[in-house]
Amino acid sequence: MGMLSEGLTQVLIPAAALVGIVFALLQWYLVSKVKVSGDSSNGLSDKLIEEEEDGVNNREASIKCAEIQHAISVGATSFLFTQYKYLSVFMCVFAAIIFLFLGSVKGFSTKSEPCTYNKGSLCKPALANAAFSTLAFLLGALTSVLSGFLGMKIATYANARTTLEARKGVGKAFVTAFRSGAVMGFLLSANGLLVLYITIILFKLYYGDDWEGLYESITGYGLGGSSMALFGRVGGGIYTKAADVGADLVGKVERNIPEDDPRNPAVIADNVGDNVGDIAGMGSDLFGSYAESSCAALFVASISSFGISHDYTAMSFPLIISSVGIVVCLVTTLFATDLFEIKDVSEIEPSLKRQLVVSTILMTVGIAMVSFFALPSEFTLFNFGTEKAVKNWHLFFCVSIGLWAGLVIGYTTEYYTSNAYSPVQDVADSCKTGAATNVIFGLALGYKSVIIPIFAIAIAIYVSFSLAAMYGIAVAALGMLSTIATGLAIDAYGPISDNAGGIAEMAGMSHKIRERTDALDAAGNTTAAIGKGFAIGSAALVSLALFGAFVSRAGIKTVDVLTPKVFIGLIVGAMLPYWFSAMTMKSVGSAALKMVEEVRRQFNTIPGLMEGRAKPDYANCVKISTDASLREMIPPGALVMLTPLIAGTLFGVETLAGVLAGSLVSGVQVAISASNTGGAWDNAKKYIEAGASEHAKTLGPKGSDAHKAAVIGDTIGDPLKDTSGPSLNILIKLMAVESLVFAPFFAAHGGLLFKYL
Amino acid sequence: MGMLSEGLTQVLIPAAALVGIVFALLQWYLVSKVKVSGDSSNGLSDKLIEEEEDGVNNREASIKCAEIQHAISVGATSFLFTQYKYLSVFMCVFAAIIFLFLGSVKGFSTKSEPCTYNKGSLCKPALANAAFSTLAFLLGALTSVLSGFLGMKIATYANARTTLEARKGVGKAFVTAFRSGAVMGFLLSANGLLVLYITIILFKLYYGDDWEGLYESITGYGLGGSSMALFGRVGGGIYTKAADVGADLVGKVERNIPEDDPRNPAVIADNVGDNVGDIAGMGSDLFGSYAESSCAALFVASISSFGISHDYTAMSFPLIISSVGIVVCLVTTLFATDLFEIKDVSEIEPSLKRQLVVSTILMTVGIAMVSFFALPSEFTLFNFGTEKAVKNWHLFFCVSIGLWAGLVIGYTTEYYTSNAYSPVQDVADSCKTGAATNVIFGLALGYKSVIIPIFAIAIAIYVSFSLAAMYGIAVAALGMLSTIATGLAIDAYGPISDNAGGIAEMAGMSHKIRERTDALDAAGNTTAAIGKGFAIGSAALVSLALFGAFVSRAGIKTVDVLTPKVFIGLIVGAMLPYWFSAMTMKSVGSAALKMVEEVRRQFNTIPGLMEGRAKPDYANCVKISTDASLREMIPPGALVMLTPLIAGTLFGVETLAGVLAGSLVSGVQVAISASNTGGAWDNAKKYIEAGASEHAKTLGPKGSDAHKAAVIGDTIGDPLKDTSGPSLNILIKLMAVESLVFAPFFAAHGGLLFKYL
Repeated sequence: MGMLSEGLTQVLIPAAALVGIVFALLQWYLVSKVKVSGDSSNGLSDKLIEEEEDGVNNREASIKCAEIQHAISVGATSFLFTQYKYLSVFMCVFAAIIFLFLGSVKGFSTKSEPCTYNKGSLCKPALANAAFSTLAFLLGALTSVLSGFLGMKIATYANARTTLEARKGVGKAFVTAFRSGAVMGFLLSANGLLVLYITIILFKLYYGDDWEGLYESITGYGLGGSSMALFGRVGGGIYTKAADVGADLVGKVERNIPEDDPRNPAVIADNVGDNVGDIAGMGSDLFGSYAESSCAALFVASISSFGISHDYTAMSFPLIISSVGIVVCLVTTLFATDLFEIKDVSEIEPSLKRQLVVSTILMTVGIAMVSFFALPSEFTLFNFGTEKAVKNWHLFFCVSIGLWAGLVIGYTTEYYTSNAYSPVQDVADSCKTGAATNVIFGLALGYKSVIIPIFAIAIAIYVSFSLAAMYGIAVAALGMLSTIATGLAIDAYGPISDNAGGIAEMAGMSHKIRERTDALDAAGNTTAAIGKGFAIGSAALVSLALFGAFVSRAGIKTVDVLTPKVFIGLIVGAMLPYWFSAMTMKSVGSAALKMVEEVRRQFNTIPGLMEGRAKPDYANCVKISTDASLREMIPPGALVMLTPLIAGTLFGVETLAGVLAGSLVSGVQVAISASNTGGAWDNAKKYIEAGASEHAKTLGPKGSDAHKAAVIGDTIGDPLKDTSGPSLNILIKLMAVESLVFAPFFAAHGGLLFKYL
Repeated sequence: MGMLSEGLTQVLIPAAALVGIVFALLQWYLVSKVKVSGDSSNGLSDKLIEEEEDGVNNREASIKCAEIQHAISVGATSFLFTQYKYLSVFMCVFAAIIFLFLGSVKGFSTKSEPCTYNKGSLCKPALANAAFSTLAFLLGALTSVLSGFLGMKIATYANARTTLEARKGVGKAFVTAFRSGAVMGFLLSANGLLVLYITIILFKLYYGDDWEGLYESITGYGLGGSSMALFGRVGGGIYTKAADVGADLVGKVERNIPEDDPRNPAVIADNVGDNVGDIAGMGSDLFGSYAESSCAALFVASISSFGISHDYTAMSFPLIISSVGIVVCLVTTLFATDLFEIKDVSEIEPSLKRQLVVSTILMTVGIAMVSFFALPSEFTLFNFGTEKAVKNWHLFFCVSIGLWAGLVIGYTTEYYTSNAYSPVQDVADSCKTGAATNVIFGLALGYKSVIIPIFAIAIAIYVSFSLAAMYGIAVAALGMLSTIATGLAIDAYGPISDNAGGIAEMAGMSHKIRERTDALDAAGNTTAAIGKGFAIGSAALVSLALFGAFVSRAGIKTVDVLTPKVFIGLIVGAMLPYWFSAMTMKSVGSAALKMVEEVRRQFNTIPGLMEGRAKPDYANCVKISTDASLREMIPPGALVMLTPLIAGTLFGVETLAGVLAGSLVSGVQVAISASNTGGAWDNAKKYIEAGASEHAKTLGPKGSDAHKAAVIGDTIGDPLKDTSGPSLNILIKLMAVESLVFAPFFAAHGGLLFKYL
């Protein structure tokens, strides 16, 4: 037994979650002190404004900002509600499928069964597991939806406030954007932990000592979270990029008006998109990763000596790690908001990077403490049918290596996507010879950026797998996600700054303010790429852990590449990311074409629009994005949700195991390269626009041939980095967790095709 | 025992090879009847010229063509000789490595050893195997070089002749180009078979009844062939695309002069590139596949009951299949050159497609006969330590399914890359909104085009693996390659037509002729994509077969994804195609930038160049391509050649097995999507240029905005489809065959890192 008592554990976990929620609300309160409505004189801080902008009436700008913010917020809320309406249908249908498939494993019998792992004991009937899995699925789905929605709310609340603060200096604006990101990060991580904790407590009332059944059912929570995340990411991704690409193609390329110009009819849709795609989608995504890695770890723990000896504290190790993570992130946040002040544009990126380093260092200490206090010094873990003896410091290494691998991925991503380093500058330089070389160099950069993250993931896998089998992988994933609150904060910071810039432009604010928000945004592009790097890296570990759990639950001992069943799974699985990307890219392309037509139509038919005398019809563009997104998210969603069901039912668990391994190892590469290529193109364009160095000046200014080539690259990168790339990590996680949930069914009734052939 | 006697087998194989060579020479003779020098009155066929072009003096055009042809031929020959000079150094060094590594397995002992599979017998010492493997490696390398070189020779001989024949009509030109392709196809397949056959005969003089040792050594032949192919493909690919991209960027985009305009200084380098990249590189590549699949099949056969009972005919099954293939292709060729006549541009593609169907149908009959006559009705095959009972009709299915999977891949590729179908037309349509949507749609098309080929490969693998274990896979690969002579003919037809078009433009021939060569070329783009599809499909099967052989030879029983050693191999292996592509794309990009500078410099400094009064300095551009290609082929080459050595030596055979599986399943996808994306962009551009339909006319003509967007896509596609994509299939094959050759060393001394950690 570890030193931490069961009772203390029972208190610590919810306490940490509550601390996180309170901290989030505090940050929200601080953000809310910036007033956007035109009624007040912009709060207390007015006298602090050092340099008032010429020609912009403070009150007028504030009113304009409030209007735009309102339009964005209404658009985002109405889109999400429409999306949720569709998703609730899906949720009900899929809940029924889960119940029927899992219930049929033992023919809907209500008899208790002998336990699979804890020999000699009696476990709850399969029907109960089916019912509780279904319930957990619904809870996971709801929490995921809530996470995305809350993120969107705070983001649309903060965007205009960031714009207004930018008038006072870049430091103020940065703090507002960052605090808002922190609200999302803390709400989401604390919420996820709390709901999971409460669910376990409630389920335990029924399950009692049947840990196996309890944590089997809990895996449904991960499935629910991830399936909502899939639709959130894909739907949101299509929405945002259809609007963005459409707006850019007509506005920037044809009409030569700047980005986010209020004359562009698609501009509101574009800004709404940032909030539903990059914020709500990403929030659901990372919540999904977090839920799944917790579920995978808990499931493996339940069939290991922890579960068999009913060591509650040790069983809760994954949850305690997350609890400590919240506290660590809280301290880390203070480094950005209170301990250091940003005085110059050049300090933004270092400050965000500092967040990564500080949280990683503090968390390493936290992990050491948890491993020492919560775990027995020696115990055994389930390892594909055998038991593996493990020491507590082994687990310390497993969690830490995941955490540090995350840092390595973050730094690599930054190197390849920030315009402070040579890779992006080379891409910008290649714009001199036109769009073609820009694209060639950008694609090459994305491919190259895969190398170090893959080695980092491979090393993390090797160490944690060797030390603590599948459980090691699961807690390594959790380690990478333990600082999720900070990760989300710096990630959400990006789209908020992007929106802030858009609002500044639309409200007609001065060049100076736009420059500040641009600088925030450029850093935001990099942090968005870093966030995606984390999401993908953790997804790789999570899905491997889920894969391991699936294999255990399905009762397979080896997944041998040298058997035809497994190999065909492997090669087809490796193909799925391509199929999926083809769908999502094509969706964005088609939706963008529709948007282009509408924007063109408005420019051609609304008299005085180009001269700024008439208002465009924003709502029509919002509708096009909404419709396209809702319609087009179905085929890729179906591909991901149906593949495990079809593979498992028709071809059996071996082939399905191959599919999971194949899609994992192939999907990670596609996802990383797509995200980084897109991020690099975006920042290469910003590099030329900003013209901060001698080299950049030779390429610019806006409107030069090189800049035009850079805009083309940026447009191509949009669907890569915001639609297909980040959706892929959900693909690999979701297929794995779905297989895990349905494993008993596949093991009992799967492989029909091979049986009857 | 099968019905075919050993003596007859001994005659049939070399006879078929000789028939192939004679047929190739006959085709060469027929091509040579078209005279290009200005001395003669263009041979016998002059009176057949029905419509003489206005304004083009026949004699003058002929002389001009001869000049250009000479320049291309000299450039290509000199590049290949320079390349071979470097490669000979590499060959010697690598031969030494092979000898030392394999010799060290038993400490350079000259004692005979007990056989591994044929228990109770004595086999030759490991040192002998090392020496013969080294010899086989050198022979394979030389044959590969010879294949590429001969292909280049006939292609540079035929290009101008095709141009001249185009004056008489599209049919004549088609036949000339196709015959020349056939020369290459037949020479290469017959040559490969003959050298392999003779090598076996000669090695047998020493090995006698030691089949194991004999066919272990023969695997060196595959390694030699493939390693030359790698450098040929990569070097040639960089050469051709540096020139092509460089020429296009300045010529088409900046100066607005047509493709292949003689004023463009890079135009000769571009045309040389087609011959050294698409012809010589591709020839070496397919020769490599062919050699490797034969070696893999022979090796597995030697450790199966065939080898143990010394059934010579059954052992030679792979060689007999290839022999029959030559005869089948001979008959098939007549369908294109003699039985049907092309009268209209629209008949070109159907005629080439007919080649695929006819050869596949005839070959199926051939396979049935060989399986029935050459094989015993029942026998056992080695299956990872166990023996699998197999019937002769099982092998018929294995070979046939490979063959038909090839046809499916070919047809799918055609569908996705020919501008007769909607996918390419959609891409062309997306050019309306600019280059960005063109690239997005093109990438999506490439991703989508992976789906059917992967299912075809998966089904072929499942069936052949289930029926006849690894041997089944090896002969399925051989089945796909059995019609290689036809495949190569239609593949080589592409670059020859491309060159012919270039020569027509440079010689200032009329619009009409250029239109005909353009039509030939558009079909050539599709056939080139089909050829790449075959190369990749067969590479997937071949490398799986080699992988299986490697695993057997290394003495591993399972390759379990659920062990950390294998999994990290898998994920790192899946990354390698990206690393490799990053290198090759960047190389093309950088070399193209240099080319752009040189071309610009010449346009700016040579007075009268744009007006056609002065000649550009072609040689300088040729030099830039040559230097870039030779310098840049080293890093990707080293990556591929060193990875198996490092992985095997440091991490051991399990990790290496993971690396092979990972690179196989991931590389196939990258390769197919890259080739098809590039092919589609090229043909989307041609679709707009040709303006053959109402739809196409709305997008064109040349110089319209949509056309400019299409040109950008085409330029991006160049390195994808001609450098990185097609090199990837060599990557996966080569790593597999290298692992196979070095397997005894890795098994004895590998895994140092894990041993000492």
